[in-house]
Amino acid sequence: MRILVLGGDGYLGWPTAMHLSNRGHDVAVNDNFARRSYDEEMGVDSLVPIATLDERVAAWTEVSGRTIKSYVGDLCDAAFVHQMVGDFRPNAIVHFGEQRAAPYSMIDQAHAVYTQTNNVVGNLNVMYALADTDIDIHLVKLGTMGEYGTPNIDIEEGWFEVVHNGRKDRVLYPKRPGSFYHLSKVHDSHNIEFGCRIWGMRATDLNQGVVYGADTEQTKLDPRLATRFDYDAVFGTVLNRHVIQAVLGHPLSVYGDGSQTRGLINIVDTVECIRLACENPADRGEFRVFNQMTESKSVLEIAQTIADTFPGEATIEHVDNPRVEAEGHYYNVKHSRLEELGLKPTLLSEALIDHLFDVVERHKDRVDISAIMPTVDWRATASQLPRTASELTPTAQ
Amino acid sequence: MRILVLGGDGYLGWPTAMHLSNRGHDVAVNDNFARRSYDEEMGVDSLVPIATLDERVAAWTEVSGRTIKSYVGDLCDAAFVHQMVGDFRPNAIVHFGEQRAAPYSMIDQAHAVYTQTNNVVGNLNVMYALADTDIDIHLVKLGTMGEYGTPNIDIEEGWFEVVHNGRKDRVLYPKRPGSFYHLSKVHDSHNIEFGCRIWGMRATDLNQGVVYGADTEQTKLDPRLATRFDYDAVFGTVLNRHVIQAVLGHPLSVYGDGSQTRGLINIVDTVECIRLACENPADRGEFRVFNQMTESKSVLEIAQTIADTFPGEATIEHVDNPRVEAEGHYYNVKHSRLEELGLKPTLLSEALIDHLFDVVERHKDRVDISAIMPTVDWRATASQLPRTASELTPTAQ
Repeated sequence: MRILVLGGDGYLGWPTAMHLSNRGHDVAVNDNFARRSYDEEMGVDSLVPIATLDERVAAWTEVSGRTIKSYVGDLCDAAFVHQMVGDFRPNAIVHFGEQRAAPYSMIDQAHAVYTQTNNVVGNLNVMYALADTDIDIHLVKLGTMGEYGTPNIDIEEGWFEVVHNGRKDRVLYPKRPGSFYHLSKVHDSHNIEFGCRIWGMRATDLNQGVVYGADTEQTKLDPRLATRFDYDAVFGTVLNRHVIQAVLGHPLSVYGDGSQTRGLINIVDTVECIRLACENPADRGEFRVFNQMTESKSVLEIAQTIADTFPGEATIEHVDNPRVEAEGHYYNVKHSRLEELGLKPTLLSEALIDHLFDVVERHKDRVDISAIMPTVDWRATASQLPRTASELTPTAQ
Repeated sequence: MRILVLGGDGYLGWPTAMHLSNRGHDVAVNDNFARRSYDEEMGVDSLVPIATLDERVAAWTEVSGRTIKSYVGDLCDAAFVHQMVGDFRPNAIVHFGEQRAAPYSMIDQAHAVYTQTNNVVGNLNVMYALADTDIDIHLVKLGTMGEYGTPNIDIEEGWFEVVHNGRKDRVLYPKRPGSFYHLSKVHDSHNIEFGCRIWGMRATDLNQGVVYGADTEQTKLDPRLATRFDYDAVFGTVLNRHVIQAVLGHPLSVYGDGSQTRGLINIVDTVECIRLACENPADRGEFRVFNQMTESKSVLEIAQTIADTFPGEATIEHVDNPRVEAEGHYYNVKHSRLEELGLKPTLLSEALIDHLFDVVERHKDRVDISAIMPTVDWRATASQLPRTASELTPTAQ
């Protein structure tokens, strides 16, 4: 198949592109390097050094004998997206190309507006380019488990049967997301469902859990093929941060009482889920939702697992939760559909955590410990006169 | 109370501002005249001639002895919104200031992106300005009944109790809107609910039905106080279009078989609903939803009512439905909460329709009959190379 990976220079986009290429697909990547510019803005950097996209693509050809085409440009530029899709004519578009950090979207008004504009406009442009070029192009869109919030009922895969006042319907699962970032993905989901309904688009919305891990089979082949590993409080995810804290001999910081639960997935399962979704496309007009996670753990359980596995001393410290979220909530997520397509889950294990300790040990001189503690507070609106509209356009960063 | 009406130069914003001012509130209006520029773009005009905002405000002072302050500027300009809210320091913000035509949002990629960016960014800026200035400012936001779509279960007022696999929760009512415009309002609703949850905002989301009618008590006082009356296929609503067709001796065009049902509300009830919502604010942290409609009728019933009331000959003609929507669907909408606050519904009556015939008769030389038939097709993506991103910023029109 011909597969276009949007956000193909990112933490998951790049390993996905290599995984699909390794499986014999004809792969192209798109990126505007927004993720690298967020590092500049926040004054942080990936723990693992990463090559430029040009170096990555060249190294991949050297190592695998296969080529990955690259399109550099912004998804908010409709003409660019239209030309790219018309030029590559993919069978599937895998869409990782969005601002994906909840804390980043909560910094202030400008970051909230940037996140929603960037994500929603980029996705609309992809929808229109696909519909104009070939309505059979399958959109595989990355959503997040955070779209659902923490309802007191079972979380189904995107749709559910509801009985109300004696009548039945199959409706979209109600969403109650936890940040302006998570909200942007809810907006995307609604827009895409509409595209399926009116144009007959084929779409798979992957509501992904928190991804952990530093490597896939391909990233390990050459240092130039490594993917980024974020540990800062804005872009780093909970598990990766704790691993670094353990290695550096710092207490593992747990937000609040730690009873809030997250759906998790290993990076090696993520790339496999994308392959399975692409190779088994949605039907014409189908808006299909998969919950892309393999296990649930509370934030405290995650910290305890890291502490228990760490060969040295590791303590846990509770800090004020900067987020507004339920603790001690019900959390029962259905996630069988990807396994029905063939996913064999790789659960969190000592071996994996040991590998992460090695990765961090190798690069621990690059850690800026001050970047780990949370600085973005969900309750604050960062009161200050916002910048003007001209600075808030989709491409402004 | 001090009430700021956003979109205060529009069809409903202007009558609402006068109604609130007439009731003794201290009112300011905001507008960027986007609605007037859509007329220029589409080559159409209000059936009823309308004065400029300056003329309106001056006439209102002359007629009523009361003043309405005006702020001219774009809600997508965050600094402007912040300054306006800080300067006027309202108790309530009534937010009509969005692009509000479904067909306009469906013209092509640029209009879909413009509609969602303009509406979502404007609303986010209002939320941040309010939260930064005074979290007690009550946001009264205009949504639409079109957010719900046509589910096979009763439509509740924004929230509902759901029982699923033996467990219960109160969740947001699932939405399945019918255009990129309706989707923009769904996005707004989700963003506002989040603002209530994390910042403790007070918000009332008014899911309004199709508004009909040309006058309120205040618009009739002086020709300079008249509000616009749209009849074109893009901005005109179904009932108003049929009145014009009847007066001009043209067949009343019904989309499809006409069995699709709409919630309706008279313009005199709209302004009263806004007053009731402002004078009975939501609690701190409350996201309150009212279905702002008073009766349901199928599109065919509406046409038949007009035809039956018209003193001359009026025939009905079915045309292909340009929209993608269910016909012959279940439609049972709960709408008791505004009546509980004191709304006395003014239902569609012969007297009202007779008044509309008079209004149209008076201005029928201004009608461009070619503007009445639908030109925007929901199924088409208007294939053409989109403009570049720089032309798609929130303020571009």
